[in-house]
Amino acid sequence: LMMGTTDEPEGDAEGRIQPVTSPGGVKVMSFGFLVDPDQPVIWRGPMLQKALEQFVGDVNWGELDFLVIDLPPGTGDVALTLCQNVPMAGAVIVTTPQDVALIDARKSLHMFTKLEVPVLGIVENMSVFQCPECGHTEHIFGSGGGQRTAEELGVPLLGSVPLDPAIVAGGDTGKPVVIDRPESPTGKAFIEVAEALAEAID
Amino acid sequence: LMMGTTDEPEGDAEGRIQPVTSPGGVKVMSFGFLVDPDQPVIWRGPMLQKALEQFVGDVNWGELDFLVIDLPPGTGDVALTLCQNVPMAGAVIVTTPQDVALIDARKSLHMFTKLEVPVLGIVENMSVFQCPECGHTEHIFGSGGGQRTAEELGVPLLGSVPLDPAIVAGGDTGKPVVIDRPESPTGKAFIEVAEALAEAID
Repeated sequence: LMMGTTDEPEGDAEGRIQPVTSPGGVKVMSFGFLVDPDQPVIWRGPMLQKALEQFVGDVNWGELDFLVIDLPPGTGDVALTLCQNVPMAGAVIVTTPQDVALIDARKSLHMFTKLEVPVLGIVENMSVFQCPECGHTEHIFGSGGGQRTAEELGVPLLGSVPLDPAIVAGGDTGKPVVIDRPESPTGKAFIEVAEALAEAID
Repeated sequence: LMMGTTDEPEGDAEGRIQPVTSPGGVKVMSFGFLVDPDQPVIWRGPMLQKALEQFVGDVNWGELDFLVIDLPPGTGDVALTLCQNVPMAGAVIVTTPQDVALIDARKSLHMFTKLEVPVLGIVENMSVFQCPECGHTEHIFGSGGGQRTAEELGVPLLGSVPLDPAIVAGGDTGKPVVIDRPESPTGKAFIEVAEALAEAID
C-alpha cells in the first residue's frame, strides 16, 4: 500500500523469488505480498526466523545499492534474529522526540551495540507540525529530543522528519511524498536523511 | 515513567510480587521495574511467555475492577501467548486513523477473533490536532477512519483521543492528563473512552 504497488512477487526458473518493483523504482519484498491483507501473521519466533532468512537469502535481489529492512518497534525476536543472522552495515533508530519514546531508542541502541551492529544514527520522526491555517509550528512531541539523545548516545542525528499530513496521504495512496513532491520541505527532509545516512555508511 | 512512580515492586512473605501503586491509585507491574531502563529486554518467545505468566499469576494483584494489559503493536508472540494462556474479558484495539494503520487494526481484530477473544471496540488515537495559536483543527492522520473501520468490522468505536501535547507532557512527567486535568477536553476524551469500555465489558 505505502509503496504504491499491488503486484505480486513471482518465482523464477531457479526457484528464487523475484521482488516486486514499486512505481518509484524500489525493489520491495513484504509479508503483505504473501498473506491476505486482512489476516494477521501470527507466527512464533522460529517461523518468523525462517521467513526472514527467505526474504534475505531466497529473494533474487540482484545488485543493490542499499537493502533497507524495516523492523517492528522494540527489541524483540525479529531484530534479534536479524542481527544474529544477517551481516549489516548498520542500524538506524527512528523515534519521536518525547522522553518516553527516547527510553526505547536508548534500549534499541544498547541492543544493537550488544549484538555488534553499528548504530549509524537517529532519525527524529514527527518532529514538528506546522498549522496550515496560521503557519504556527508546534513541537507536539517536545523540542530537541532527537538532538539531545543523539548527543547523549554519541551517535549522529541523521535528520528530522516533520509531522505532515502529506506523509500520511502519500502512505495511504502509495505515492511517497519524497517521490511525489521532492521539492516540498517534507520531501527535502527525507532526502537530507537519506543523504546523511548514505554518508554514514560510506 | 508514564505512571509517575519510581518505586520498585517487593516480594511478600508468600513469595508473591507486590505491585507498585502509582500516585493516581493504579496498581502497576512493568518490565521497566525489573530491568535497567537503558538496557533492552532481548527475550525470545519462551522467556517472554514465562515472564507474562509471572505478571499475571505471581503478582499479588488483590481484588481488581479491571486488569489492563498494554501490548506491543501488531500480532506477534506476546499477544498470541496471552490470548492462549489468560482468560480475557476482551481486547481493545487502539489505532491512528490512517489507512495504513487501519490495515493493522483489521489484522489484530482477525487475530483476536481466531483466538476467540472478543473485541470490545476500537479507540482512535491522535484523531485531531487543534492549533494552540489559531484554533484550527487538523485531522493529521485523516478524518473518520476509526468510525469507518469500526463500522466495517462490526465493533463499537469506544472514542477518540486527540493529538494533544498535554498527553505527551503528561506521559513524560508521570502526570497522566486524565488525572492531572480531568476537566480538559482531552481529559474528558479519556474518561469517555473508559466509560464506554466499562459498559462494553458489563
